[in-house]
Amino acid sequence: MEPIKPYKKSFDYSYTLGAFPTIEMIKSRPECVRGVYIHSTFTDREHLEQLCRENNIPVLDSDKTIARVSDKENVFVVGVFEKFDCELRKDKSHIVLVNPSNMGNLGTILRTAVGFGIYDVAFISPGADVFNPKVVRSSMGAVFRLRHHYFDSFEEYRKMYDKQEVFTFMLNGENQLTVDNCPKPELFSLVFGNEATGLDNSYLNVGTSIIIPQSPDVDSLNLTIAVGVGTYMFTH
Amino acid sequence: MEPIKPYKKSFDYSYTLGAFPTIEMIKSRPECVRGVYIHSTFTDREHLEQLCRENNIPVLDSDKTIARVSDKENVFVVGVFEKFDCELRKDKSHIVLVNPSNMGNLGTILRTAVGFGIYDVAFISPGADVFNPKVVRSSMGAVFRLRHHYFDSFEEYRKMYDKQEVFTFMLNGENQLTVDNCPKPELFSLVFGNEATGLDNSYLNVGTSIIIPQSPDVDSLNLTIAVGVGTYMFTH
Repeated sequence: MEPIKPYKKSFDYSYTLGAFPTIEMIKSRPECVRGVYIHSTFTDREHLEQLCRENNIPVLDSDKTIARVSDKENVFVVGVFEKFDCELRKDKSHIVLVNPSNMGNLGTILRTAVGFGIYDVAFISPGADVFNPKVVRSSMGAVFRLRHHYFDSFEEYRKMYDKQEVFTFMLNGENQLTVDNCPKPELFSLVFGNEATGLDNSYLNVGTSIIIPQSPDVDSLNLTIAVGVGTYMFTH
Repeated sequence: MEPIKPYKKSFDYSYTLGAFPTIEMIKSRPECVRGVYIHSTFTDREHLEQLCRENNIPVLDSDKTIARVSDKENVFVVGVFEKFDCELRKDKSHIVLVNPSNMGNLGTILRTAVGFGIYDVAFISPGADVFNPKVVRSSMGAVFRLRHHYFDSFEEYRKMYDKQEVFTFMLNGENQLTVDNCPKPELFSLVFGNEATGLDNSYLNVGTSIIIPQSPDVDSLNLTIAVGVGTYMFTH
């Protein structure tokens, strides 16, 4: 395997930082894994080596490589994987993120989506790079469990996926989401905007606009919280 | 006013980074504000200066000070405030955080609490420093809207606040939280554990233990998401 370098978006590969997301990756998408670096001081080596053996994944030792690609000191495992393409499923519900910009938030949202049973996530470009190691890490490996796809516009997404009922989460949404009135559509797309700007007014007309009731003492909810509450309500 | 230094927990003062949390602070706790630094290139100076004048808060110009205490380049306003003590209210519902460790999470949780109408938050020590500028910033100023207090143990908290019905959020909780079965107590304490370790088994017996249903494809939900969903369900 060629040596890995500090991540750039243009690479055709990326990596997992830490044992947990690396194991998640091997279990979910073993065919994408090019190799796993294990630090000489890592104490739980046996389980990971066995998992690699079972999946014909090379195990590499290079403490220098691990130090070079990880910005935190407590990284003992780095998995290298080939970036993959996915297609969303037409017969499942989706989360749609319009221009997500914060990498930590993006990872947390993917983890939350999988946690609440949504395995298809659309991004409307421009948006943060889902394969950036920071996203992969904060997703705790959930990025390997789900399908994602970037679209140039919401219209492009909608042309391909028109069976889902669309719900847009907006501070000026017309319907308050409460435990009693949460819609129960069979197939849905939950659409959330950018951290700083939310969804613009054009999204008032693409489906049912929703606001999660919140106190006047906050400007808005954190995006991850809005996605968490909205998704929980629609899936439970 | 004496010059401010990069933050340490031992200081009797701390600061807000950015115009938004600074304005929130002046509106909520003007008596704590020692002064506000405004960068020479800040474009929305007039509104902020007027707010300071109305509250007899000195406005200071020192681009150097702002650069010294902020780690991000896009900080144009720094507010200096005296740390304050609070007492939780006996006749209101609470959130209880046991050993919260991540400062960004802690701020997000405070913002979420206020967003969903909970204005009393207990911390069981040890836990992150609620006055650290990173917490203040990620709370978007919500730390000034609510009352918080540190307790040495859950028992100490419970001795002072015994009217609240206790609900502990645990991966081995005995009751699945769903839209249909969410308890509706008049007064409640929602208890959440540390990011990495959750609540230990002793918390199974201090009240009603709850699990937020989640897919087996994730290890757990992010703490902020658990607090967001749990609090939303109990307050709506």
